[in-house]
Amino acid sequence: MIKVAIVGASGYTGVELLRLLLNHPQVEITCVTSRQNAGTPISSVFPSLMGRSDLVFDPVDVDLITARAELVFTALPHKAAMEVVPDLLRAGCKVVDLSADYRLRDAATYELWYQPHTSVELLSEAVYGLPELYRSQIRGARLVANPGCYPTSVVLALAPLIEQNKVFLSSLIIDSKSGTSGAGRSARVGSLFCEVNEGFKAYGVGNHRHTPEIEQTLAALAGEPVAVSFTPHLLPVNRGILSTCYAGLSDPLSTEALVAFYRERYADEPFVRIHPAGEWPNVTYVRGSNYCNIGLFSDARTGRVIVVSVIDNLLKGASSQAVQNMNLMLGLEETCGLGDLPLFP
Amino acid sequence: MIKVAIVGASGYTGVELLRLLLNHPQVEITCVTSRQNAGTPISSVFPSLMGRSDLVFDPVDVDLITARAELVFTALPHKAAMEVVPDLLRAGCKVVDLSADYRLRDAATYELWYQPHTSVELLSEAVYGLPELYRSQIRGARLVANPGCYPTSVVLALAPLIEQNKVFLSSLIIDSKSGTSGAGRSARVGSLFCEVNEGFKAYGVGNHRHTPEIEQTLAALAGEPVAVSFTPHLLPVNRGILSTCYAGLSDPLSTEALVAFYRERYADEPFVRIHPAGEWPNVTYVRGSNYCNIGLFSDARTGRVIVVSVIDNLLKGASSQAVQNMNLMLGLEETCGLGDLPLFP
Amino acid sequence: MIKVAIVGASGYTGVELLRLLLNHPQVEITCVTSRQNAGTPISSVFPSLMGRSDLVFDPVDVDLITARAELVFTALPHKAAMEVVPDLLRAGCKVVDLSADYRLRDAATYELWYQPHTSVELLSEAVYGLPELYRSQIRGARLVANPGCYPTSVVLALAPLIEQNKVFLSSLIIDSKSGTSGAGRSARVGSLFCEVNEGFKAYGVGNHRHTPEIEQTLAALAGEPVAVSFTPHLLPVNRGILSTCYAGLSDPLSTEALVAFYRERYADEPFVRIHPAGEWPNVTYVRGSNYCNIGLFSDARTGRVIVVSVIDNLLKGASSQAVQNMNLMLGLEETCGLGDLPLFP
Amino acid sequence: MIKVAIVGASGYTGVELLRLLLNHPQVEITCVTSRQNAGTPISSVFPSLMGRSDLVFDPVDVDLITARAELVFTALPHKAAMEVVPDLLRAGCKVVDLSADYRLRDAATYELWYQPHTSVELLSEAVYGLPELYRSQIRGARLVANPGCYPTSVVLALAPLIEQNKVFLSSLIIDSKSGTSGAGRSARVGSLFCEVNEGFKAYGVGNHRHTPEIEQTLAALAGEPVAVSFTPHLLPVNRGILSTCYAGLSDPLSTEALVAFYRERYADEPFVRIHPAGEWPNVTYVRGSNYCNIGLFSDARTGRVIVVSVIDNLLKGASSQAVQNMNLMLGLEETCGLGDLPLFP
Repeated sequence: MIKVAIVGASGYTGVELLRLLLNHPQVEITCVTSRQNAGTPISSVFPSLMGRSDLVFDPVDVDLITARAELVFTALPHKAAMEVVPDLLRAGCKVVDLSADYRLRDAATYELWYQPHTSVELLSEAVYGLPELYRSQIRGARLVANPGCYPTSVVLALAPLIEQNKVFLSSLIIDSKSGTSGAGRSARVGSLFCEVNEGFKAYGVGNHRHTPEIEQTLAALAGEPVAVSFTPHLLPVNRGILSTCYAGLSDPLSTEALVAFYRERYADEPFVRIHPAGEWPNVTYVRGSNYCNIGLFSDARTGRVIVVSVIDNLLKGASSQAVQNMNLMLGLEETCGLGDLPLFP
Repeated sequence: MIKVAIVGASGYTGVELLRLLLNHPQVEITCVTSRQNAGTPISSVFPSLMGRSDLVFDPVDVDLITARAELVFTALPHKAAMEVVPDLLRAGCKVVDLSADYRLRDAATYELWYQPHTSVELLSEAVYGLPELYRSQIRGARLVANPGCYPTSVVLALAPLIEQNKVFLSSLIIDSKSGTSGAGRSARVGSLFCEVNEGFKAYGVGNHRHTPEIEQTLAALAGEPVAVSFTPHLLPVNRGILSTCYAGLSDPLSTEALVAFYRERYADEPFVRIHPAGEWPNVTYVRGSNYCNIGLFSDARTGRVIVVSVIDNLLKGASSQAVQNMNLMLGLEETCGLGDLPLFP
Repeated sequence: MIKVAIVGASGYTGVELLRLLLNHPQVEITCVTSRQNAGTPISSVFPSLMGRSDLVFDPVDVDLITARAELVFTALPHKAAMEVVPDLLRAGCKVVDLSADYRLRDAATYELWYQPHTSVELLSEAVYGLPELYRSQIRGARLVANPGCYPTSVVLALAPLIEQNKVFLSSLIIDSKSGTSGAGRSARVGSLFCEVNEGFKAYGVGNHRHTPEIEQTLAALAGEPVAVSFTPHLLPVNRGILSTCYAGLSDPLSTEALVAFYRERYADEPFVRIHPAGEWPNVTYVRGSNYCNIGLFSDARTGRVIVVSVIDNLLKGASSQAVQNMNLMLGLEETCGLGDLPLFP
Repeated sequence: MIKVAIVGASGYTGVELLRLLLNHPQVEITCVTSRQNAGTPISSVFPSLMGRSDLVFDPVDVDLITARAELVFTALPHKAAMEVVPDLLRAGCKVVDLSADYRLRDAATYELWYQPHTSVELLSEAVYGLPELYRSQIRGARLVANPGCYPTSVVLALAPLIEQNKVFLSSLIIDSKSGTSGAGRSARVGSLFCEVNEGFKAYGVGNHRHTPEIEQTLAALAGEPVAVSFTPHLLPVNRGILSTCYAGLSDPLSTEALVAFYRERYADEPFVRIHPAGEWPNVTYVRGSNYCNIGLFSDARTGRVIVVSVIDNLLKGASSQAVQNMNLMLGLEETCGLGDLPLFP
């Protein structure tokens, strides 16, 4: 069993990493840390885990972590992550970082959207952990920057079109909707049940921090800069992201041809599923799993293609994608421990 | 007290008409019909109304209705509506029709999206019941076609831009999300709690019947044909529509100027509220009321404006807009009986 | 117009008082206070109220409040309430206090369940504001202690049986379920959407603070001490309390006789509605209204009666009951401003 | 791989059986039937299963089923089940029946609550499939009657007290709350999203069909007849049952002693977890798993014990308990294929 640690495991991505790794046949969790819950058993913080683990939260102590684990998941807020990742690497650990700190290639862009970057030297080394695009680089990586939830849903939806130059880059409009677990587990009025339930709103219009991450990845595929309209919305569900993407086709393409094109592109991908023409994904089709489902429509009236993708934001959008990256980095079967079927209803 | 009837009052728009009209100070409900519930007290079908009315559902009988009422709300499915509306008018009643049957000016368009039209002669007379656009025509109308829920949210969001020729007509993309009451009260697997709850999906992509209604109204404002991309989605909430509208600006305009422009356009409208720059509407801000709230953003990076509007689909999107139309048709104060503030939380 | 103030108006009961009083035909809100939101327009804190009021939150200043209003609603946490209520009374205001501070007759009991009581001298004067039991005393009161949400639902359910000595007092078991707005608007992890949604739990088992309030009121009706089992649960809905009450009948009584007995008891009550035998209330039947609905069953197999009551916890359980009390205290029509029908669906 | 079939697999328990068995390491699904979906791939009916199985629904044909499988799950409505179970047994299959048809020992009781019983001869052979009570009998059974969802939650909560004669049998009151998937997947107005969401109600008060099943099992433990008050309620969540059980203690017992007593009773049970004193289960702690969590309180004031249990009604209340029974019947490890941890949030 390979020894792994989770740093910052008291949020929603943390409990999902715990759930997945406790059932993973090839790894063993040897250390979990939490500033606020140090000294508390994980099953007291997360009673869903009762009876399955005696792990107790440790304080965040790099020496302790690196003594116990060979691969570390850092599930910390941005800024906090880059304060520990360099030390973890220096001590010889591999790292899957779930924060935003190593996702953007360009420190200036990072600093424009976040705050000063204190670990710039690792930016060129970090691999963007989207296996459907960067599988081979991930295999050899010491540091993987696990993608954001929205970017995962958007890039999987649009990559085939952009790789093959099928749409006008200036025409990209992305209307995304995320479940509330994406807002994390901190106590804020805006995340209270009574504020979210029976509600729906746009937020971060024109300035959401996932915009540069989306643009960077699409630009790399396009070979030229890309600017998108990206509008996130808050859904009154626990889990799930659905992104509705609009793009102007450079050449006409039928819906059937579009479906065939996506099926071919993702033929070898174990976690991408393409719906037949006329059928559309629901976030319930992927809940609790590592899948991304995609539906497609080509609108002859307007010359636009509409691509709808769904993922579980805590899984393919965070924790299970992190495990997929870990599997690749450790030379394990990529799908190992990720066989859960979606929970419906 | 003016006597009014509701034909087809056993659905969600029906119960909302009952709620509003039972509290309306100038009208009296003298007849409610329901094929399936004939003979049953309305408070048995809708226990929320217990103790406030002795009304009993009648079968649908035009003579009975026209003998008892001077204005009739027809809350029937399309096709069923046009089977009774001509007779109601012939007997001297005014009619607010909540179905789709009289919304489209052009019978051929109607027949393309619905089925054969059997009441074509009334199409030119029917007034599209959006008071913010057609107030004076509604005042004189015998027959008002109450707008669809999606079109109400979309047209109020885009009308100012199109009236003043501020956006490229070919650039309009509308991403709408509706609460589940929009699907009506009929028993279908797809509307079951366990299918909708914790879910989210697009539906009717590229072929939703509200598309021609939106395009017709926008085209009338533009003075030329308009084709839009319109994608509806199903929200796991009871009530509320939020439409996120994207349009390419023909000339640059700051967000502040945009807000000022909308405020001026809607300055005299009692039911349209414009958010300040940087604030966005939530469907909870209008739930249970006749309001439409609008938020605005002008994105210099992409040259697009983003307009987000919210309404309660059962109220401004159906029943309270119908009452607003009734008030105008009867020469009452337009806001009469529509003073309910939104119910939050 | 009679001038009223709301002290502590930035929570959920506060916004409901604002909604009700802004539409009340006989009173005018002249002052609203909030420590945290002082200086902010109420419509910025509650966008649902946009366009209907220019009121701005004031800091909590007793001189200001008493200069502007003749009746004051104190919507403060317990302890904070009794710090201002004596001064408000001293300045000649009438007070409807929505906190727990004046509900319990006995200071020792209060101090057992809460903390030291600093306004003991007013306890004997305060009238428990349940109009169905204490209407005449409320009419003459300077200080009304507005009942708790659970106690309102429970006492209306059980009062008829206990007044008439029809059940064994030692047999009372109350299983209550409340919507999440009952937990207030403060930011706590336990009230986050993702913690509450799709969840259900018991809490405060055996030690909830509404227990002594329930027992005090039932004991007053019984003329002897009463001890109940009271178990509250947290429902994943915004609004609504449903209490399922079990009691052993001292003499057999059919369900039909039970229904008739309740109908007679509440015949003159405008806000209590009794379901026919075999029909049961749903919290949706009262949402947004001042109603209490009650369903009844007498189980010959076990000799027990089962009484199920529902209220909107923010309305009959708090704000609209406070307005009902205000109407009585000011000599207005008891139902004035309380005519809203429940919002369904 | 042992070959198994699922008869009637198009409902919610069906899709859960499919999900569990597709991932079960020791069995293979060789046949799934559905009257309404015959000829359709299971992944078209349940897109959550896309890409994981090529199974197609067959019509219900006993010869086909028995030719393909050695153990059959019958997930049919009551009455329909007993029309096929005898033939399946006769052909040599083992059967786990998820309907109510073989749960009651006494045909007369069955006929009182359901309809005439046409398979009476099998009643004495059928084993009630609650492993925590009847493990050894299940191991040798040809026919297991999988328990109802409510009875599972109630019997696990009360069995320790009744086995050891610790409570008055006449004092049992059970207040249960179930998620909406318990109502099945058929299209009925009462199960529509807008009817259930934001609602809560009691139903089947005094006459729910799980009452005799609960009473039969408790009576078997007590060695004498038992009559309980059982009140089910409908929760606006997809999954989960919480039962709050009240019982008068025959001898005083502290909460701590009670917890210790339950821990001892269930020490060897892999799927029952007892909360420490002062902590209470939430349905979210078991969602997606085969666990039953139990919280306890002994109330010295009233002499009553309060036991709160939670299960996932589709899993420990139906499909995963059926797999647990299958494992026992086939001589497999009891926990095989049931290792899923609960999905939180």
